[in-house]
Parts: sequence; C-alpha cells; structure tokens
Amino acid sequence: MSKTTIIAEPNKQEIIISRTFEAPCELVFQMWTDPAYIPEWWGPSFMTTTVESLDAKNGGMWRFIHRDPNGKEYAHRGVFHEVASPNRLIQTHELEFVPTVGLITVTFEEAGAGRTKMTETSLYPSVEIRDELLRSGLTEGMDELLDRFASLLDMHSQRSLP
Amino acid sequence: MSKTTIIAEPNKQEIIISRTFEAPCELVFQMWTDPAYIPEWWGPSFMTTTVESLDAKNGGMWRFIHRDPNGKEYAHRGVFHEVASPNRLIQTHELEFVPTVGLITVTFEEAGAGRTKMTETSLYPSVEIRDELLRSGLTEGMDELLDRFASLLDMHSQRSLP
Repeated sequence: MSKTTIIAEPNKQEIIISRTFEAPCELVFQMWTDPAYIPEWWGPSFMTTTVESLDAKNGGMWRFIHRDPNGKEYAHRGVFHEVASPNRLIQTHELEFVPTVGLITVTFEEAGAGRTKMTETSLYPSVEIRDELLRSGLTEGMDELLDRFASLLDMHSQRSLP
Repeated sequence: MSKTTIIAEPNKQEIIISRTFEAPCELVFQMWTDPAYIPEWWGPSFMTTTVESLDAKNGGMWRFIHRDPNGKEYAHRGVFHEVASPNRLIQTHELEFVPTVGLITVTFEEAGAGRTKMTETSLYPSVEIRDELLRSGLTEGMDELLDRFASLLDMHSQRSLP
C-alpha cells in the first residue's frame, strides 16, 4: 500500500504531495538536498539520474538529467528562492523537455518522535498543464521516487545505529 | 485613459498584466533590469524605493524596499530562474510583509516598428491570495508603476535622440 498522499483538486493549478518518513527533520532535509544521494532516488529506477549541479542555498541553482535505457535525456532544472534548513525549501522547477516552470514549496515538519512529515506543493502555470502532468504519470512517478527516498533513509538510519 | 490591460479571471490563481511601450525590446529590457532606474518607477510615487540588490542573471537575487512617508518599510525579494535578454524573465517574488511567494514570467515582444509589448503573468499559491492582492490595490499600483516606467522610457528615448 502506498504511503504517499497526492491531492489534485479539480480546476486548481497545484498538486500537493505528502509523505511521513521514519527519521528526524534534520536527517530528512540533509539527505533531500545532498547531491551525492540524488542519483539513488530522484526519478524512476529504470532511468539513470545525473546531478549536473545542486547548490542548496538562496539563489543556488540545480540541474538533474534523467537518461532512459535508449540513451534519451530529460533534463530538469531550477533555482532556490529559499533554503531554510531543516524545515522549508522554495524553488522553481523547469521540465526542459516540455518546457514548463513550476513553483515548488517543500516543508518538513516533526510528526512525533523521530518522524517527519514532508509536504510538497507544486504550482503550475495552468490547470491544463497540471492535468497533463498528472496524465503523463507524475503521480506514479512521485510514488516510486518517495519509496526510493524512504528506503535510502531507512538504510542510512540503520547504518547510523550504534 | 489607462494603457494597461489587467486580466484576472474568476477562480484562477494568476494575474496577467500587459502594456505596450514606445521603445524597442532591447531598451525596454535594459531599463527594466537596471538597478539605477528602479527607484524611479518600481512602486508607488508616494513611497521611496531602495534597491538592496538586483543581479539580473540566472540564479541572481533581487530585493527592493518601499518606505512610506511614516518610515514604515515593505520589502520585496526574489530570485531569477531565467534571464533571457531581451525577451523573457522568469523570477520569484516574495512580499515579505504578507508573506506570499509568486512565480512571475515577463515577456517582451516586438509590436511593430520600435514598439514592445510587455506581458507579466503572476502566479500565486491560491485564488484567495490572488484575490486579496487585487483587493489591496495591486491593480492600481501596477497601473501607476507602468505609467512611471513608460514616462521614464520616453524621457530616456528623447535624450537619446541625435
């Protein structure tokens, strides 16, 4: 059963995705913004993900490239409006192969002992663009991506045990 | 009669503002992004405007401060996702005194001999926030701001005549 909640109300321009992780905010935020981990979770597992840049600070830029088994590339890029460790990220996200620019807000909140609720709100230029992204598999993609992130977090937490 | 067109359709999260200026794209873009001119047009004339920063490049940050006659300050800030001279700007805009972060796309298109059509599309986190901004005088504010910009452009064009 999926542990990811995805809300996309009719006639709205946003998608709200949330998920609770079994790790404290500081660790979740650190792994979320660490370029060394991105290739292991950011995207579908049948593609490879390369980090061209990830500069997690106000005004910092990021660009990731997905490559499918045929070698076709799909690049994503953006810039950080705000990086407020460990609770909030506000950034742009351009899908260069569309191209569409969205405004993404990610919050990390404590959700009981050592747990963190992540909520990502993505705002798109129109209802049509948002709906097209939903139809093209964004929901399933985010579900898999967050599963991968949760697994990585679990492995990391276990390794960190005394 | 106002020369500014403002479109805010019911139940949408955006405001689309357009205006045609009597100057070529290159000049309009240059003046729009030049920190030396900002205090003369960016904001209402009853406030003073100070540029803390304006770095018009991808990932560059900007922050402007309005000060009313009583000395009260209202700061605006953002970061540029894309600066594509002379045709497009994509940037964030945070009204620090609200605070609300919007995604702003400004395009400059040729509109006949030596004329430029500017279109600014501002996307906000909700219909409610957008409507509140409209109620709080954003429309009148943009109208005055664009009048000031057009006057400045006219003065500059006249000074540049041989």
